[in-house]
Amino acid sequence: MQKEEIQQIIDLKTKPLGALGLLEKIALKIGLVQQNSHLELKNPHLIVFAGDHGIAQSGVSAYPAEVTPQMVFNFLQNGAAINVFCNQNEIELSIVDAGVNYDFEDYSKLKNCKVAKSTKNFLHEPAMSLDQLNLSFDYAKKTVDEIAKNGTNIIGFGEMGIGNTSSAAMIIHYLTDLPLTQCVGRGTGLNDEQLQNKINILSQAKDKHGKITDAKQVLATFGGFEVAQMTGAMLTAYEHNMLLMIDGYIASAAILVASKLKPEILNNAIFCHQSDEVGHQYLLNYFEEEPILKINLRVGEGTGCALAYPIIKSAVNFYNDMASFESAGVSNKD
Amino acid sequence: MQKEEIQQIIDLKTKPLGALGLLEKIALKIGLVQQNSHLELKNPHLIVFAGDHGIAQSGVSAYPAEVTPQMVFNFLQNGAAINVFCNQNEIELSIVDAGVNYDFEDYSKLKNCKVAKSTKNFLHEPAMSLDQLNLSFDYAKKTVDEIAKNGTNIIGFGEMGIGNTSSAAMIIHYLTDLPLTQCVGRGTGLNDEQLQNKINILSQAKDKHGKITDAKQVLATFGGFEVAQMTGAMLTAYEHNMLLMIDGYIASAAILVASKLKPEILNNAIFCHQSDEVGHQYLLNYFEEEPILKINLRVGEGTGCALAYPIIKSAVNFYNDMASFESAGVSNKD
Repeated sequence: MQKEEIQQIIDLKTKPLGALGLLEKIALKIGLVQQNSHLELKNPHLIVFAGDHGIAQSGVSAYPAEVTPQMVFNFLQNGAAINVFCNQNEIELSIVDAGVNYDFEDYSKLKNCKVAKSTKNFLHEPAMSLDQLNLSFDYAKKTVDEIAKNGTNIIGFGEMGIGNTSSAAMIIHYLTDLPLTQCVGRGTGLNDEQLQNKINILSQAKDKHGKITDAKQVLATFGGFEVAQMTGAMLTAYEHNMLLMIDGYIASAAILVASKLKPEILNNAIFCHQSDEVGHQYLLNYFEEEPILKINLRVGEGTGCALAYPIIKSAVNFYNDMASFESAGVSNKD
Repeated sequence: MQKEEIQQIIDLKTKPLGALGLLEKIALKIGLVQQNSHLELKNPHLIVFAGDHGIAQSGVSAYPAEVTPQMVFNFLQNGAAINVFCNQNEIELSIVDAGVNYDFEDYSKLKNCKVAKSTKNFLHEPAMSLDQLNLSFDYAKKTVDEIAKNGTNIIGFGEMGIGNTSSAAMIIHYLTDLPLTQCVGRGTGLNDEQLQNKINILSQAKDKHGKITDAKQVLATFGGFEVAQMTGAMLTAYEHNMLLMIDGYIASAAILVASKLKPEILNNAIFCHQSDEVGHQYLLNYFEEEPILKINLRVGEGTGCALAYPIIKSAVNFYNDMASFESAGVSNKD
């Protein structure tokens, strides 16, 4: 189906032209991906990737690094925000240990994709080797291929990793024109002094590594294992022609890397919310994308995806189920 | 429960402080209304009030007046946007004939609360008499009292009435400081010339009626029967201590009138979306309220309420179901 054909279906629904706003743009996007006059969201799934960051040792976060494994336990016990929202909206949730600094004894509910027990501190050396990055992509491919077997055609991506807004800031700075100071935000809640310290540390890291333009090398230098596996998962999900629900700042850094490797991936991406992290609005403008929610979230975990999912469903439902002016016998605009 | 007590429950959930953004403000609001450590949304209900407007004869809308009854049939046949979104989110829907210019033969699915077959044209005379306004409030009270019997504790309000953005513009202009030109928008889709014509007509109406300060008199002079019944329904729902889901521009004009009669009603009001109609952002600032959705909707019908309902539910669910730092054994910020 061509864009014009889908747009006409939307325009003839019983509502003023364009009056469903962003829902109409989402329906058009899904129509172009699914190429079907009946749209469908099947077995929605959300993966939370967790990983620890060497840079966390340099004091860039308001929380200690041990919070990463503690939150993994919280996910496994259904206590976190993402559990609550996935339960509510019937989204299946998978938790992946991409590289947490903890020896989990029980991997029955947790997917073991641990590359190492933390990245290296990128203030001093690259966060990971290219081999580790490739291993991350391999793990991610397996994870998503498995999910695809259930017929899932819409997937969201979340993360947990103390220090990962620093990782995202560096990736976004290196792969766009945004000055570093505008990429660095308060993360989980830094005060002014801590924020300045975070900016100083990341500036030093930039001096240390100098110019890098290759997207995979940027990801290896500054990424976390959870960011790397998220990037790989997005690329694999695109190969399966899934719709990709993009969460906040970290997930946007991942889709930025993915889009450098596969520009068409953005056709399948639905940006679920605008994070409170300062650089996120810039990045959304960079992608020329409008987020579904602007409610000052900064939890991560994929919560923006899970919260926005019912709105995406509404876009599908109005497209499938609303009457047209003709079928309802309603007079259209003169 | 005091505000501080509810806020502490929110602050001790396993997330950075304030990181659920607007959801936290909604949970606090619901906590204050329900005064219970377990929050609950029971039997959500949405009423669409339909009415015709004398002012529509003066060419203020892009659509002909016969669209009002045509859309009522569309609601009854499940073909409109509000049907789709209420079905999706399990919100019960009632359709009220508050004053449609059509003789409906079958009132089995439609509530007959018809005050008259259209308001008068407020360009020449008041839209309704004070008796008709009081009758509107009586009808609305009956409608909401009936719904309250099912235990409903959250209710949304929608409308259908060709010409009613003109009604809302006049009410908002008279009851706030906003200049008339900033209250007048494109409604269902006027072009520049039609918009200027709408502004001219409403300016003439202002000259005709002069200064009015009493809120009920403003409502009688410029309101539609659907706007009047919506205002009355909000006041009755507040008496039942329900949560009120406020839709876009017309519903905000109704809650504006209601708040002049009962200022505390705003404690129960959840503003569901920011309409694309120009004056709406001003009005939200006037109420010091942040809307849940900003996705350029301008359908009316209560669609903003139905779309935002899952987000309100998420606010309730995180409050009830998320683990605390202590219960989950997660380290809090230093």
